[in-house]
Amino acid sequence: MPELTIRSATPSDHAALWAIMEPVIREGASYPLDPGLDRAGALAYWFAADKQVFVTEADGQVLGTYYLKPNSTGLADHVANAGYMTHPESRGRGIARAMALDSFERAKAQGFRAMQFNLVVATNEVALKLWQKLGLQVVGRLPEAFRHKTQGYVDALVMFRVL
Amino acid sequence: MPELTIRSATPSDHAALWAIMEPVIREGASYPLDPGLDRAGALAYWFAADKQVFVTEADGQVLGTYYLKPNSTGLADHVANAGYMTHPESRGRGIARAMALDSFERAKAQGFRAMQFNLVVATNEVALKLWQKLGLQVVGRLPEAFRHKTQGYVDALVMFRVL
Repeated sequence: MPELTIRSATPSDHAALWAIMEPVIREGASYPLDPGLDRAGALAYWFAADKQVFVTEADGQVLGTYYLKPNSTGLADHVANAGYMTHPESRGRGIARAMALDSFERAKAQGFRAMQFNLVVATNEVALKLWQKLGLQVVGRLPEAFRHKTQGYVDALVMFRVL
Repeated sequence: MPELTIRSATPSDHAALWAIMEPVIREGASYPLDPGLDRAGALAYWFAADKQVFVTEADGQVLGTYYLKPNSTGLADHVANAGYMTHPESRGRGIARAMALDSFERAKAQGFRAMQFNLVVATNEVALKLWQKLGLQVVGRLPEAFRHKTQGYVDALVMFRVL
């Protein structure tokens, strides 16, 4: 398997990022985004002012992306938050895992003391298992906090890990 | 005690709102805001684009304020979030309670299904007791997620209530 490299995203990555984001958004199973969101709306969300955005490449192909940001402000800005998306055709290759580990390291180097995920969809078992393997603990359960596109109202989990 | 009324905030309330917000922010005990935040920064936070802002009056005096907003976006925008501040000299008069009940009713009327507080400082016992009395449950505990101005790192609670 070709080596994965992770670097900051640039405007020239937008087409590759939309190719990753569109199927994830359309699926309506993991992110609190309107499944009908268009390219401009998706990129505006991903590149919001408080986010650092990275891409994962192998052989010059962008296969995944993540953002890193403070989860809150002021007296709670020492806790980080991140979101990860992998191209559907590249799942199962350890890309999300590589991005998560990179985000933990980068967050810690920037002075963050912990990583918090606010809305892990409880039915998203692949993600849930991966986050648990990577040391995140379920610290809260939000009843019916997510409207899954095909399953309707499902619970969401708050996950947390000291860095 | 004079009757409390609750109405939408207007730009002419800014001075009264800052008089409420400044001591709460300077105390650094309850909101994830820099205790040194200035008036412009505080009002920008309170009147962010996704927030509806209300004030509580008695005898024409503004004694409290709250905001109401979606806690998240897209497939999670059916859960509301709110924040409340009472003027320090008006505490103990049921103002926070009145604002909270008003916010629940208003959120429900707007179609929200639940109310979530993301960061209730665990040492803020007065607030915690009030929210529990009003039907919010602690659904999660975030270890050391808040840097209390005098107590240092303290836990924060995620609280949730179906509307």
